[in-house]
Amino acid sequence: MLIVVALGGNALLQRGQPMTAEMQRTNIRIAAQSLAPVAREHRLVLSHGNGPQVGLLALQQAAYQQVEPYPFDVLGAQTEGMIGYMLEQELGNLLPFEVPFATILTMIEVDPNDPAFQNPTKFIGPVYEEAEARQMEAAKGWTFRKDGDKWRRVVPSPMPKRIFEHRPIKWLLENGTIVICAGGGGIPTMYDPTKERWLMGVEAVIDKDLASALLAEELKADLLVIATDVSNVYVNFRQPDEHKLGRVSVSEMKRLSAQFPAGSMGPKVQAALSFVEKSGKRAAIGSLAEIEQIAAGQAGTIIEPD
Amino acid sequence: MLIVVALGGNALLQRGQPMTAEMQRTNIRIAAQSLAPVAREHRLVLSHGNGPQVGLLALQQAAYQQVEPYPFDVLGAQTEGMIGYMLEQELGNLLPFEVPFATILTMIEVDPNDPAFQNPTKFIGPVYEEAEARQMEAAKGWTFRKDGDKWRRVVPSPMPKRIFEHRPIKWLLENGTIVICAGGGGIPTMYDPTKERWLMGVEAVIDKDLASALLAEELKADLLVIATDVSNVYVNFRQPDEHKLGRVSVSEMKRLSAQFPAGSMGPKVQAALSFVEKSGKRAAIGSLAEIEQIAAGQAGTIIEPD
Repeated sequence: MLIVVALGGNALLQRGQPMTAEMQRTNIRIAAQSLAPVAREHRLVLSHGNGPQVGLLALQQAAYQQVEPYPFDVLGAQTEGMIGYMLEQELGNLLPFEVPFATILTMIEVDPNDPAFQNPTKFIGPVYEEAEARQMEAAKGWTFRKDGDKWRRVVPSPMPKRIFEHRPIKWLLENGTIVICAGGGGIPTMYDPTKERWLMGVEAVIDKDLASALLAEELKADLLVIATDVSNVYVNFRQPDEHKLGRVSVSEMKRLSAQFPAGSMGPKVQAALSFVEKSGKRAAIGSLAEIEQIAAGQAGTIIEPD
Repeated sequence: MLIVVALGGNALLQRGQPMTAEMQRTNIRIAAQSLAPVAREHRLVLSHGNGPQVGLLALQQAAYQQVEPYPFDVLGAQTEGMIGYMLEQELGNLLPFEVPFATILTMIEVDPNDPAFQNPTKFIGPVYEEAEARQMEAAKGWTFRKDGDKWRRVVPSPMPKRIFEHRPIKWLLENGTIVICAGGGGIPTMYDPTKERWLMGVEAVIDKDLASALLAEELKADLLVIATDVSNVYVNFRQPDEHKLGRVSVSEMKRLSAQFPAGSMGPKVQAALSFVEKSGKRAAIGSLAEIEQIAAGQAGTIIEPD
């Protein structure tokens, strides 16, 4: 089987943990131990989140005031290097030397007319006091929203339309390479509406699960696994009649999908549904620690075609 | 022809220029204009330096004291993402849409017994006052040396031994992909001498021209171009009998090589010589602006087998 595994950014650096390189490496080592048996059995593509990592880079560059902050597309590219490197090295240490690896920088096209650009929702970077936020809004054209009692920049979260590096990724897979790509949801890029075929970076964040669903679809993967820190999707979560979902059909999941919160399980369910509907293959949402069992169809919430 | 072009870090961000993303993009756009005609005629692999970029990341993370600085191998991985992204996008904008691109994270093996580890020479990161430097030396085990009237950290510059991703790079080239790799000399890694086959990052800097020479050799490239900001290698530079070298044989260049300064032209000549001796193919040192003519054998200093 060809399996695309989307690793949550929090699997690599959890909330409340110190944001050190050492902490990331420890977490990535644990992730690699779960992934290694899957890599021995199947062809594997890894994507990953980058929320905490891009946040750290934003804080670091805000602290060094001598150079203008780099835009978020560039920071995203930096995190693809950073996280891909650690994943490639740590997973590589657990597999036979002969297994080839490649971490591929990934640009994803978004549509300048995506409605997300009218309504930026994704918090990024440091928090500010209101006055400071207003000042930066005026100076840089950024948009700020209230996050708790502070203010934080928001950027749009447009839909991924096309993965530019999809052919290189396929060629590598044909040769048995484990490919790490589409990190942080890929780097959002768009064609400049004022020029002919001129691609440029966009300050936006593509949902990493939606990007991974598109990746799995373009690669004709047999299974998309959205690996998170809970074992299953729960229906009526934290209510008296809460229960976890095992195998569930696309139509049943669509019927349930309205109840999953926008900030957490909602986009994962939406991404999984999108892949299953377009590909006719299965998607799973479950715990990274159980990924071997998920690949075997024995754990996680598995969404199947009708 | 298969051509490996090593771009100087200064081609991307020159000394004295503001270290902004915009400035880098402007420079990379100019580099891309020189490279595009070569990419239309030949198969192309690009490597690049990362000195100014990794320096900026070091300054940024030193300014944000809440999180321990990340080690230099990780920063190197970040710059491979950052620079690869801009190069891929800008060169892509000048070539037909169908031309595939891939930026590959590149780990290079170094030998723990490399004598360079006994004698760190490569300045990296911010400058400090002596007292501060001494303190960090004691606290972190870093080595400092005097740089002008301040102190700066030095790391070893070991020889590159093996490029881990050489097979993926070859497979991509076979499919006509323009590959960007070995950025910053590649990420230095070594097998932990105390464990069995356990690869780990090393705080070191591999010379990007030596890494590019190894890359060109492993890929069986027809030509290695070390692109810099001067048109040729000069003999007796800045002396009354100064003259520039056009075509020169390996043995002639070896005879001359002692006169080239260690900090600038020396390593470039050494890298070019190493490639020509091992491969029996040609290497060139010349100006990025003239790269089309260099590829045609009509500009630059061209080192040929005897």
